[in-house]
Amino acid sequence: MNKQWLLAERPTGLFSKENFQLREVIIPELKDEQFLVRTIYLSLDPTQRMWAQMDTYLPAVKKGDVMRSLGMGVVIKSRNPAFKEGDVVQGMTGWQSHVITDGRDYSLVPSKSGLPLEIYLGPLGMTGITAYYGLIEIGKPEKGETLLVSAAAGAVGSAVCQIGKIKGLRVVGLAGSDDKCRWLTSELGIDAAINYRSANAWQQLKDACPKGIDICFENVGGTSLDMALGLINVGARIPLCGYISEYAATEPGPGVHNLAALISKRAKIEGFLVLDYVHRSREALGELGKWVMDGRLKYRMDIDEGFENLPDSINKLFEGKNTGKLLVKVSEPPVE
Amino acid sequence: MNKQWLLAERPTGLFSKENFQLREVIIPELKDEQFLVRTIYLSLDPTQRMWAQMDTYLPAVKKGDVMRSLGMGVVIKSRNPAFKEGDVVQGMTGWQSHVITDGRDYSLVPSKSGLPLEIYLGPLGMTGITAYYGLIEIGKPEKGETLLVSAAAGAVGSAVCQIGKIKGLRVVGLAGSDDKCRWLTSELGIDAAINYRSANAWQQLKDACPKGIDICFENVGGTSLDMALGLINVGARIPLCGYISEYAATEPGPGVHNLAALISKRAKIEGFLVLDYVHRSREALGELGKWVMDGRLKYRMDIDEGFENLPDSINKLFEGKNTGKLLVKVSEPPVE
Repeated sequence: MNKQWLLAERPTGLFSKENFQLREVIIPELKDEQFLVRTIYLSLDPTQRMWAQMDTYLPAVKKGDVMRSLGMGVVIKSRNPAFKEGDVVQGMTGWQSHVITDGRDYSLVPSKSGLPLEIYLGPLGMTGITAYYGLIEIGKPEKGETLLVSAAAGAVGSAVCQIGKIKGLRVVGLAGSDDKCRWLTSELGIDAAINYRSANAWQQLKDACPKGIDICFENVGGTSLDMALGLINVGARIPLCGYISEYAATEPGPGVHNLAALISKRAKIEGFLVLDYVHRSREALGELGKWVMDGRLKYRMDIDEGFENLPDSINKLFEGKNTGKLLVKVSEPPVE
Repeated sequence: MNKQWLLAERPTGLFSKENFQLREVIIPELKDEQFLVRTIYLSLDPTQRMWAQMDTYLPAVKKGDVMRSLGMGVVIKSRNPAFKEGDVVQGMTGWQSHVITDGRDYSLVPSKSGLPLEIYLGPLGMTGITAYYGLIEIGKPEKGETLLVSAAAGAVGSAVCQIGKIKGLRVVGLAGSDDKCRWLTSELGIDAAINYRSANAWQQLKDACPKGIDICFENVGGTSLDMALGLINVGARIPLCGYISEYAATEPGPGVHNLAALISKRAKIEGFLVLDYVHRSREALGELGKWVMDGRLKYRMDIDEGFENLPDSINKLFEGKNTGKLLVKVSEPPVE
């Protein structure tokens, strides 16, 4: 049997169990070119909140369809010569325990690398590619510059912080708890981390950026972006990766008020999507892999158990409760 | 005697007479390399509101100093061989009837061209250069694209609209009165003009941009920018030239809420200053001059009389009361 979470209603605010419907269906027979995947991990990402609500860069998930999601699994039956039984694969599995696919948009995961499988949904997956190209291509870092990263303890943010250090930048992170800030400075070695919930966050940020901000890798938007705009230097670049402050908001946020600074500072805000860089993933993964091996790119996985709890687990992203990459484990990885 | 408007107090909201102090001083003798200019026109520009209030890309005007302003005048006495009596010059004259200068940052105006002098503070001056480089360099227009221009009946906006038409774009303008809209469509020949004060402005804008917006030349910011963000296409460019909605505001505006659209649309907002393009003005002025001669670049001058009324005249910019380039005439141009 295949367990599936279908989207039942469009969410308002945080996800709730009522937005979804749990169903079990019989797994049909494979046709030629198809193979059957048993899902191991599902990747929980802020963008899924948008997919559930409205058309954006992808059409909204239709009501009654399986909730869209990146995932990883193992091939347990195959009639497709390119994907053999035992292969670990990655693709848009959706929120379900099993998938039948012809392999379009699926890729093989190098499961014999000795690295833990989940790393390929983290720093050596979409997360890492997002961090890499957003910082390198949009941010165009130059040694000695100051980089501000919001949601710095998140999956993408923590990778951006470390790539920034590798590129010779002064790196300042914004995060939502003192624990996260400690992790960022003492484990990841960034120059300063500020709990944006503290009363004097603005003063702390100014103190942490004595030479202003040259790059702001923005994952949050709203007030976070406004603070950064107050400190940007001439020619600053703001890669806009996410806007998590408003994805699950029930009312409009305070808006952004300091955009006029972009004029005086001849600065830019530029949105990007990792989808536009996937065809170049080899370059990014080469670099990222080297840094992981070197110990210069650390990561934390926040792995929840329990397929049934998916609607709760994903809300951790919008409540700032995860540190590092958030996954849900659906079944056991194959034993090596 | 030299009449001067000094900045007395920093403005809050619109300018008031109390922000300035009128003074008459004796014009001193010229030293070597100096010349004396009798001011003819002063250029009134939104950016002056910022200069009066705070440090931006230029330091704030100091209290007690002559209010900073671009202006044009005629040399009436000279001990500088490069600037002869009778020459018409342009530079940062400030709000005063006479200026003594050594000519640094002053340039000669081609006063024998047969064109009215004021054109060199309009489409063949900083205004035109701003429009030209903002659209061409930041907007990167391609034939057939849709261009939205805010403050479209203003000095820069009206030039952008027409350059857009010359470059083969569909051009839609936002302006603050039906009269301005009529001028834009019937005189300047743009495709549609919308009075942003009308109740159904948003619906009108959607109707006017059936293929979305590829370039938004933004002079206003705030709600105007938010509307544009709701209609941008993939890869859209938003040259941010001005933010007049908030320059003279006494309380924070509603903020900008639709920035997340930049992500889905891989779009950018990029601020710029004409100062960065002045060294390339020859190229722009060559093109602009040709278009003025051809009749393809029309313009309107809004010329107020009365040096004493400067603090009132400049507020027309923030109240949306000018159409085209706003100048104050301080004295008569030389007779040809």
